[in-house]
Amino acid sequence: MDELVNRGAGVAAWKQIADAIEADIRDGHVPPGERLAPEPALAERFGVNRHTVRRAVAALAARGLVRVAHGRGTFVEAGPIPYTIGARTRFSEIVSRTGHEAGGEIVSSGITQADATTAERLRIPVGAPVLAARFRRFVDGLPFSHGRTALPLPRFSRFLDAFSESRTISAAFAACGVPEYRRAWTEVSARISTAADEPQLEIAPGRILFVVESVNVDPDGVPIQASSTLFPADRATLRLES
Amino acid sequence: MDELVNRGAGVAAWKQIADAIEADIRDGHVPPGERLAPEPALAERFGVNRHTVRRAVAALAARGLVRVAHGRGTFVEAGPIPYTIGARTRFSEIVSRTGHEAGGEIVSSGITQADATTAERLRIPVGAPVLAARFRRFVDGLPFSHGRTALPLPRFSRFLDAFSESRTISAAFAACGVPEYRRAWTEVSARISTAADEPQLEIAPGRILFVVESVNVDPDGVPIQASSTLFPADRATLRLES
Repeated sequence: MDELVNRGAGVAAWKQIADAIEADIRDGHVPPGERLAPEPALAERFGVNRHTVRRAVAALAARGLVRVAHGRGTFVEAGPIPYTIGARTRFSEIVSRTGHEAGGEIVSSGITQADATTAERLRIPVGAPVLAARFRRFVDGLPFSHGRTALPLPRFSRFLDAFSESRTISAAFAACGVPEYRRAWTEVSARISTAADEPQLEIAPGRILFVVESVNVDPDGVPIQASSTLFPADRATLRLES
Repeated sequence: MDELVNRGAGVAAWKQIADAIEADIRDGHVPPGERLAPEPALAERFGVNRHTVRRAVAALAARGLVRVAHGRGTFVEAGPIPYTIGARTRFSEIVSRTGHEAGGEIVSSGITQADATTAERLRIPVGAPVLAARFRRFVDGLPFSHGRTALPLPRFSRFLDAFSESRTISAAFAACGVPEYRRAWTEVSARISTAADEPQLEIAPGRILFVVESVNVDPDGVPIQASSTLFPADRATLRLES
């Protein structure tokens, strides 16, 4: 039998449905990472039309409880994963250690001239050539971060080819003659997401993003990489160990 | 002569005033930390009533550009200060090094029983006595953070007396026989402020807060302090050096 919404309760139907789905998530009936029942099934369960279901799901997404992946369904957010930042910050290792599967892709790349900020961070002249890339990282197949990175040229001209073979940053650095490197500094600020961020990260409008600026250096302290990475605060807490 | 707002411009009067004040701030006519002209003066300058001025100022506060300190006026936000987190995290030293003046106050304190989280962090039994305090920290007299901290008893029963004499955490620890200590770990998450946070931090509604959980340990690695601290993201960027 349908769990019909109570039309006389003084609470909008979509709100009653959102509350019921939230209770399902809280009680573990739909575990983190799982897909919610599709819209037609929810509409039938609650005896409402799909528009009402969609409004309930949008309200849960706006609070960061679920994530709408267009064409793939609506997933329960897994809750933030602790992401450890320190001298040895290696995305794949950190994520594997928490029992999750790490992935990454280069969205776009090219050779460009260092702007003032990049030049200062890489300690190269303004206008010097850098390899610039936009990347996304995934945890269990879901977007975890999105950002841009710059590496000095010609030192790292083989980097992208190496990355496309090995799929990890550390292996790509090793292939360029830098088997060891460390994080020199990291600066964390935060802002609200914009329409430009949201499709890349598959987040609802107006979520909090960590903006993580960082520089990696080789064992001699020479900068090899300057990055700016966005992490939805729903998906990552930043952990610092000293 | 008044800078009268343009009533036929299709832009609301309060928005024109907000834009004019924002331009004053951006051009450095009202530098960071300075007080805006009082409401009656702004009303006269723009040829509008005080209600319209108030709406313009509220819009700037909502974007984090100014801070309304009730009874004291409206101040231009100074922009975020880099707050370095590492093994040696000392609020007063960090702030002094950036050329600002540090201050702090204990809002309330008492003896309580450790809850599960505090007990785990301090490695003491659940229900063991702890000294619990709520505190605020100030930079140049403005609220910079607000939080709560717990210290194990009876080891730190003299802590509050020592703090009220010395006004710094490190001096108070030294008075309790712990001249040296370090940050064991720090975890950063973020959320939107609530009505409970806003008066303590003197922020406009709905600003982003960093939630910083941390544990300090003595030279033997024994936990001496577990804290949860809120920093408005408008006022602090978190910097990690490795």
